[in-house]
Amino acid sequence: MHQLSQGPYPPTDVHDAALLTPPHTIQQHATDYRSLNLNIIHEYPSTEGQSPGANILIATPLMDGAAYLEKYFQKLTEINYPKELISLAFLVSTVAKDESIDSTLVTLNEHVSKLVSHSHYRRITVIQQKAAPSAYSHHQRHQYKLQESRRKELARCRNALLATALLDESWVLWLDVDIVEYSPDLLQMLMHLNVDIVVPNCLRSGSSLWRTEGVPYDRNNWIETTESLATQRDLEDDEVLFEGYERDHPTYRQSMADLDRKHQVLVVLDGVGGTFTLIKAQVHRAGINFPTLPIDHQIETEGLAKWAKREGFGVYGAPFLIIQHS
Amino acid sequence: MHQLSQGPYPPTDVHDAALLTPPHTIQQHATDYRSLNLNIIHEYPSTEGQSPGANILIATPLMDGAAYLEKYFQKLTEINYPKELISLAFLVSTVAKDESIDSTLVTLNEHVSKLVSHSHYRRITVIQQKAAPSAYSHHQRHQYKLQESRRKELARCRNALLATALLDESWVLWLDVDIVEYSPDLLQMLMHLNVDIVVPNCLRSGSSLWRTEGVPYDRNNWIETTESLATQRDLEDDEVLFEGYERDHPTYRQSMADLDRKHQVLVVLDGVGGTFTLIKAQVHRAGINFPTLPIDHQIETEGLAKWAKREGFGVYGAPFLIIQHS
Repeated sequence: MHQLSQGPYPPTDVHDAALLTPPHTIQQHATDYRSLNLNIIHEYPSTEGQSPGANILIATPLMDGAAYLEKYFQKLTEINYPKELISLAFLVSTVAKDESIDSTLVTLNEHVSKLVSHSHYRRITVIQQKAAPSAYSHHQRHQYKLQESRRKELARCRNALLATALLDESWVLWLDVDIVEYSPDLLQMLMHLNVDIVVPNCLRSGSSLWRTEGVPYDRNNWIETTESLATQRDLEDDEVLFEGYERDHPTYRQSMADLDRKHQVLVVLDGVGGTFTLIKAQVHRAGINFPTLPIDHQIETEGLAKWAKREGFGVYGAPFLIIQHS
Repeated sequence: MHQLSQGPYPPTDVHDAALLTPPHTIQQHATDYRSLNLNIIHEYPSTEGQSPGANILIATPLMDGAAYLEKYFQKLTEINYPKELISLAFLVSTVAKDESIDSTLVTLNEHVSKLVSHSHYRRITVIQQKAAPSAYSHHQRHQYKLQESRRKELARCRNALLATALLDESWVLWLDVDIVEYSPDLLQMLMHLNVDIVVPNCLRSGSSLWRTEGVPYDRNNWIETTESLATQRDLEDDEVLFEGYERDHPTYRQSMADLDRKHQVLVVLDGVGGTFTLIKAQVHRAGINFPTLPIDHQIETEGLAKWAKREGFGVYGAPFLIIQHS
């Protein structure tokens, strides 16, 4: 049972009388009081029906994302999980001088306005934060030499979003705004795997969904190989590796997207992306977020995976569960 | 101006009409809605009177701390800063099998009960989390060989506290429960220094307060020296250093507590402790918390200082500002 209470003290849903002081007159006051037992909210049963429901935070970082929001919210509302257990959080990285006309923020607020009025999510948080103006255009953003600064800025956005929006949730789903297709059951399927970190297989939009064929998009879900580990022995400590730049810097890793997708087998990953990444909140509460300094030569989502593994958490991929990126 | 709103959408204190969708009928609903502009809450003016007030989170990790709580709350209520701008958060690391009889939690709840009823803090959060049972007694805890596991556990507690309790505050004060003496003005004095991270000088209780003499307690506030940096060149990457164990492992650092305390001069530090540590929330939002994996051979608070410096934040000590540890 969740031992969360908000509102006047003493809490009403704490079941052990020893924790309560004798009843006294509750005065009207301004203090927002919460009592949380992380031992209880950490325990998400792997079998169905044992829990009153695990709360989840769906976190989405946004920059120049206005065009994707319509589709994003359409897919979001189709998710087969009780809305009362879902908290939503968005961080809009405003780059325009005049933040008030940032079209992503305006469009986001229109969508959020409808959700707040017409649905029953647990909590919705909209955060704005100035981003360093990027020295590259949208179509340049995948260039190899731009990756370190781009991914560091992304990591900072994710960290600010996490630090501000996470409260007492059991899970965090990192959901990119430009994911255009996934099954309404995917979130529940991933939750029931009951592992610390898990990612589905992110293919390029236009691939045939729910089928085993399709063109890989997210190359950040990968497994180290003998060869990849050997090449890392010669690197400087602060050298950062990125996937998908074989001509600039081959890493010799096994990409999950290239594995056989026919079998329903979870694979152990060493790096993950952030397109649809489900993480137990206890991983983040242990201090693990999105590093901007390299951990084993990786930053951002891939650095998170390396960090989590060092701390004994499990990192997995489901090559057979397909999502589509725009 | 703070651009924080809680409650029905559209927010009432957003000053730019372009961010608002046209007014519509607000329905009664369960969604908790928040809009936060981190660009605004980050800016704390260094000159007085320009701000409506910066919110601060005072965070205190607790384990076997019942004996100190009476004094802790007495000093806390004397702090010369508006209570409406202060949020309090406690994380009780429960080690007893039966959490309900953990005396720290019971005593804490008694004190919090009074605060909630009779004062107007902004928010109070009480968190419980199981700690790994320590294999050492209270008086053994300073032994050198126990430091790594003890400090890692402390780091995990601080990280869980931070991840759960920080919302939109501008500052975080890490305040240890066994700090028994500090000036009611100390918090404001440190805030007005307007630096990213700052610590006062923590002496042993019984030293004459507000005076320049006194016996050092917190040796974690330190400055690297030529000799200390030279010794680190021979260390393995994962080797962790601790201060105050000169016979086991001399580090040759300059302890802030040994500096001349007569002059009102801020010093640049390389490591900090956590007894009364004031940190701009933007440092934590950038992802910097209390590492359990070594950063430049340091973990927990000292690792935080090393990490923050690597990311370009300023870390300072005020040797002339004295606090006392029990």
